[in-house]
Amino acid sequence: MTRFFVTPEELNAQQPVLTGENANHARVLRLKAGEEVLLCDGEGSECLCTVADMGAGEVVLNVIRRMDSQNEAAVRVSIYMAFPKADKLEHVIQKATELGAYEIVAFPSSRCVSRPDEKSLGKKLERWQKIAASAAEQSGRGLVPKVLTLPSYAAALDRASKADKAILFYENEQATTLRMALEEGNARSFSLLTGPEGGLDVKEVEQAAKAGLSVCTLGKRILRCETAPLCALSAVMYASGEF
Amino acid sequence: MTRFFVTPEELNAQQPVLTGENANHARVLRLKAGEEVLLCDGEGSECLCTVADMGAGEVVLNVIRRMDSQNEAAVRVSIYMAFPKADKLEHVIQKATELGAYEIVAFPSSRCVSRPDEKSLGKKLERWQKIAASAAEQSGRGLVPKVLTLPSYAAALDRASKADKAILFYENEQATTLRMALEEGNARSFSLLTGPEGGLDVKEVEQAAKAGLSVCTLGKRILRCETAPLCALSAVMYASGEF
Repeated sequence: MTRFFVTPEELNAQQPVLTGENANHARVLRLKAGEEVLLCDGEGSECLCTVADMGAGEVVLNVIRRMDSQNEAAVRVSIYMAFPKADKLEHVIQKATELGAYEIVAFPSSRCVSRPDEKSLGKKLERWQKIAASAAEQSGRGLVPKVLTLPSYAAALDRASKADKAILFYENEQATTLRMALEEGNARSFSLLTGPEGGLDVKEVEQAAKAGLSVCTLGKRILRCETAPLCALSAVMYASGEF
Repeated sequence: MTRFFVTPEELNAQQPVLTGENANHARVLRLKAGEEVLLCDGEGSECLCTVADMGAGEVVLNVIRRMDSQNEAAVRVSIYMAFPKADKLEHVIQKATELGAYEIVAFPSSRCVSRPDEKSLGKKLERWQKIAASAAEQSGRGLVPKVLTLPSYAAALDRASKADKAILFYENEQATTLRMALEEGNARSFSLLTGPEGGLDVKEVEQAAKAGLSVCTLGKRILRCETAPLCALSAVMYASGEF
């Protein structure tokens, strides 16, 4: 069944209408009256419809059923990633979206080689959000993860620590495994924090522990900064019973 | 401590000697007599040494202790991936190596868009093996995963099925989770098989089930062909107690 991303307002209309690119896409697909389509608002709501009328430039739909998205994870996992070089952040946004992340938060840390300046940040956020939207569409998600940036490491710790379970992955940690951190409780929201290319500073790790984050290992092998968050996300999704 | 990759013969010498690029690297690092270095043969054996003599063009070492690599996973996970487009296979080789894969096996399947011809395969394998070696070095592994190709899907199933636990991931499977497949026994070797960009054909999935592979889901979201093997590998490493 074809899925269309629309605004929440369009989705909530009594008789939803596809316009613009969506209408073009429907015509390319040669949808016919009576065919079923699924509308998603990118915020977790979906609406199953049938095509009522293939008009010129717009497609009028009839609502069959409104529902929550069926493809979202039962847990909310937020990825907190220290700014890596540009292409790596884009890679993580795309892959973390596929893997079901709730949001992706980038922030500066002391060893970040790359951090976007204020000026270019607006355009970059727009680009990053588009990457998330495109990956969400391709992977069949009903929610487009928000991509956001924070101005400081302290702000990242503060926000991350509000999840049921907040974890920082550190290559020099050996004793505490992710498994130990996950076994402690029945968390429904997670913050997974990882460092930049040069790793986190030991003082930053101590600061995170003080802020309430669990400091964990991802195993004996050193992972690149773009691999660590995706490995951790995959493991948390597995541990949460997603697959 | 600095690690040097050497041949098994060099590692097994009574008094190992660094030559060529390794000797250059030692000079750049300004190693001094008495300093400890670690030799790895890329096949899982290591040798802790001290520098005996920084010669011109070679570095003579004294053996302290020979041992198995400390950074290898307790389980052997083989990645079986249907040929994707070139850059994706390289991506998977690099990341799977970081994540601790034992070997990476590429093979053709019916919907493969891209498959290397016989002529170019030799050069490609050489390139792929270099990517694995470089990723193994960076992530601190003692074993360089072998990259190999098989001539047919049937050959891939046959080889994959010889692991303690062989699993095929299929986007239309909903009932059987990876967790179910892993709970069945105390496997020490795994084959994880995933399809190309267009997915596996339903007949290929049936053929795999007949060959003894478990058919599992990786969750409700559709993963790209380069994301699926890395997600599965991360989860298996987690489930095996690696982190």
